[in-house]
Amino acid sequence: MIALGIDPGSAACGFGVVASDGSNLRFVDAGTVRTDPARPEAARLAELEAALDRLVAEHHPDRVAVERLYFQRNVRTAMAVGQARGVALLVAARHGLAVSEPTPNEVKLAVCGNGAADKQQVAVMVGRLLGMELSGASDDATDALAVAIGALYPGSSA
Amino acid sequence: MIALGIDPGSAACGFGVVASDGSNLRFVDAGTVRTDPARPEAARLAELEAALDRLVAEHHPDRVAVERLYFQRNVRTAMAVGQARGVALLVAARHGLAVSEPTPNEVKLAVCGNGAADKQQVAVMVGRLLGMELSGASDDATDALAVAIGALYPGSSA
Repeated sequence: MIALGIDPGSAACGFGVVASDGSNLRFVDAGTVRTDPARPEAARLAELEAALDRLVAEHHPDRVAVERLYFQRNVRTAMAVGQARGVALLVAARHGLAVSEPTPNEVKLAVCGNGAADKQQVAVMVGRLLGMELSGASDDATDALAVAIGALYPGSSA
Repeated sequence: MIALGIDPGSAACGFGVVASDGSNLRFVDAGTVRTDPARPEAARLAELEAALDRLVAEHHPDRVAVERLYFQRNVRTAMAVGQARGVALLVAARHGLAVSEPTPNEVKLAVCGNGAADKQQVAVMVGRLLGMELSGASDDATDALAVAIGALYPGSSA
């Protein structure tokens, strides 16, 4: 079972790919899709779509988890994040993949056993669960890996 | 010149298609794309994408105008509208169409000469400019026609 986790953002969209054989988790890929801020919004969404399409083609995930973010600074930011989420959900639907939309609390609960865990705790647990050092990973990528891990736990609402 | 105007919404997405020969405007099509509320969010965005793709294939617009809505009730609504906007912008970018993102004020200014015009005034002016009775059109469709008209005025920021 392979999960693609997505931390949607307008300028930077984190992604994490994790495989599970039922008992062990394995890191597959992670990073951040950055689009060119000098380009128009529509073209940037098309860049994001192409990047996510490539990830699906490369890793053949069984499920895609797109973090559900309700606590944006303001409506303008929420709209921009919503646009990126829309593209991610669309790519998942087009490939016929199972989609989940966990909240940050659900992800933290799944990964740390604590829905109020901070970023540092999440990073420590993601590294521990994947048996690797995450010091070089961006916040977006680490967060997306946590989202992917949450999607692999049976019975997890994340 | 043909413009496709879009009033993005999560449950109901208005569209309006208007042609211009430089001096006269002509109604081409208008309506509302409604997706099945019983289906998952990702599937509904894929339905919206397919509907917008069909509109582009049928009417060959030269430009697409997607209303920019900053004044949502709350962040949750803004996120949902953002997802629909993301799909609309993506479809426009994929077809290589010119995209504009007018605010409601810019649209009202273009259609009514008054950025603070109310819905009724907008409906009256849209009907007048297109030389037709709009009594049967939904608010979403009328609004989308106004967005399309704004995109056809030379020099209009809408």
